[in-house]
Amino acid sequence: MLQFIAHPDNDPVPFQRLDATHDPSVLIVCDHASAVIPSRHGDLGLAADSLTDHVAWDIGAATISRLLAERLGCHAILAGISRLVIDCNRQPGDPSSIPHCTCGVTVPGNHNVDDAEAEARAGAWFWPYHREIGTVLGRMFRHGPVPAMISVHSFTPCMQGFQRPWQVGVLWNRDGRMALPVIDSLRQVPGLCVGDNQPYSGREINYTLDTHAGAAGLPHVSFEIRQDLVRDEEGCRRWADILARILAPVLADPSLRRVQVF
Amino acid sequence: MLQFIAHPDNDPVPFQRLDATHDPSVLIVCDHASAVIPSRHGDLGLAADSLTDHVAWDIGAATISRLLAERLGCHAILAGISRLVIDCNRQPGDPSSIPHCTCGVTVPGNHNVDDAEAEARAGAWFWPYHREIGTVLGRMFRHGPVPAMISVHSFTPCMQGFQRPWQVGVLWNRDGRMALPVIDSLRQVPGLCVGDNQPYSGREINYTLDTHAGAAGLPHVSFEIRQDLVRDEEGCRRWADILARILAPVLADPSLRRVQVF
Repeated sequence: MLQFIAHPDNDPVPFQRLDATHDPSVLIVCDHASAVIPSRHGDLGLAADSLTDHVAWDIGAATISRLLAERLGCHAILAGISRLVIDCNRQPGDPSSIPHCTCGVTVPGNHNVDDAEAEARAGAWFWPYHREIGTVLGRMFRHGPVPAMISVHSFTPCMQGFQRPWQVGVLWNRDGRMALPVIDSLRQVPGLCVGDNQPYSGREINYTLDTHAGAAGLPHVSFEIRQDLVRDEEGCRRWADILARILAPVLADPSLRRVQVF
Repeated sequence: MLQFIAHPDNDPVPFQRLDATHDPSVLIVCDHASAVIPSRHGDLGLAADSLTDHVAWDIGAATISRLLAERLGCHAILAGISRLVIDCNRQPGDPSSIPHCTCGVTVPGNHNVDDAEAEARAGAWFWPYHREIGTVLGRMFRHGPVPAMISVHSFTPCMQGFQRPWQVGVLWNRDGRMALPVIDSLRQVPGLCVGDNQPYSGREINYTLDTHAGAAGLPHVSFEIRQDLVRDEEGCRRWADILARILAPVLADPSLRRVQVF
């Protein structure tokens, strides 16, 4: 399960790209696919358990992204770096881009980060990932219908003492073209508690989709899966199956495939 | 006036950056500052008059941007390339990114542009400009209050036979924090006809601001000035003065300087 874990002699790549086998008009992105910390940062001053925990990455999200890309036959781009080093779902410079403290965990290695260090991290990880998304979207846009983007994240079952009831959340801001039918479909799955902009709102944090899809008027949707359900391969497979089934008719609807800025 | 015009032996740079002298919390961007076509593209098959016309760049916008940056003492980043080569205010791959036809003018050199050529143009011009905006915003964000972004464009007095009555248009989409007070102030200037999302809407075309400011929740506003008013230095100076006067109190209002995604 724990792909992309750092190895001192094996520094990571900024992204991994899976090419479409069947539907080149859809792109899955996974901002928090990786818990890798490049060797030059050591452990950022963190305890070992934090380095494989939610603060470092979205547990399960990389595996679901890969499996979902297989099922849909679409493109996927997975970020190669831990969000503890630089968060690919934040604008560089945003206080949470290189977090001093995240979910109550202090990150000593991120104190005293100066411009040169912040820009080196962005240059090594953030920009190559985002440029690859832009380049692949450009290619999709030139050759096919208006591209659709899907983002895969995961969330902790408990936050500040609150047990989160949702198994899955759908995050969106203004463009509900994909989100609304997806929420409807998920709510028809027996036993599912589906969050509409829960456990937090796509109106607040949705950087990658807002910048690539929102600004260009491309249809898009973001999923959050609860981490206790996707800690093993079987759970990831189950969720990839659910998402693929729900998404297929939405992605096949040509009326969604037009440029519209909301 | 016509800065940045191409010279066969003097290929352009992807952007020009002016550094703040007084207020490092404000960034002016000018997507269509330049009419330069790199020598390897020749004239893209166009008649000479198109190469200095609106189809190639926003007449006056670069000079206003420079003068406004001087007056506000803020940062400015001006794109170095003609939008005929690649439009820095469009997502790569968007049909208007490398236009086949723009404002009724066919661009022969943009027919048969394949992925390699499109990506070479994006790599040479689009990405360095946008990365510089992101990098400068990051530096601003780390050291000061939430950055404010201002975009400067210009528009033709007549479009498809319609004489446009506005001397200035303010474009915005959802975030009216800067746009609304700016429109109010401009409407108090005697004799001005002020367009609110005219001559076209910031809800449709606002790529650079949406991707850098909108996605990150930074306050922003976009100006369009009518080109017959800014064809010479004196006109540009007059408009830079008006905009600087209007903007000063808006930029000084600390209540606007917070991250808020709309």
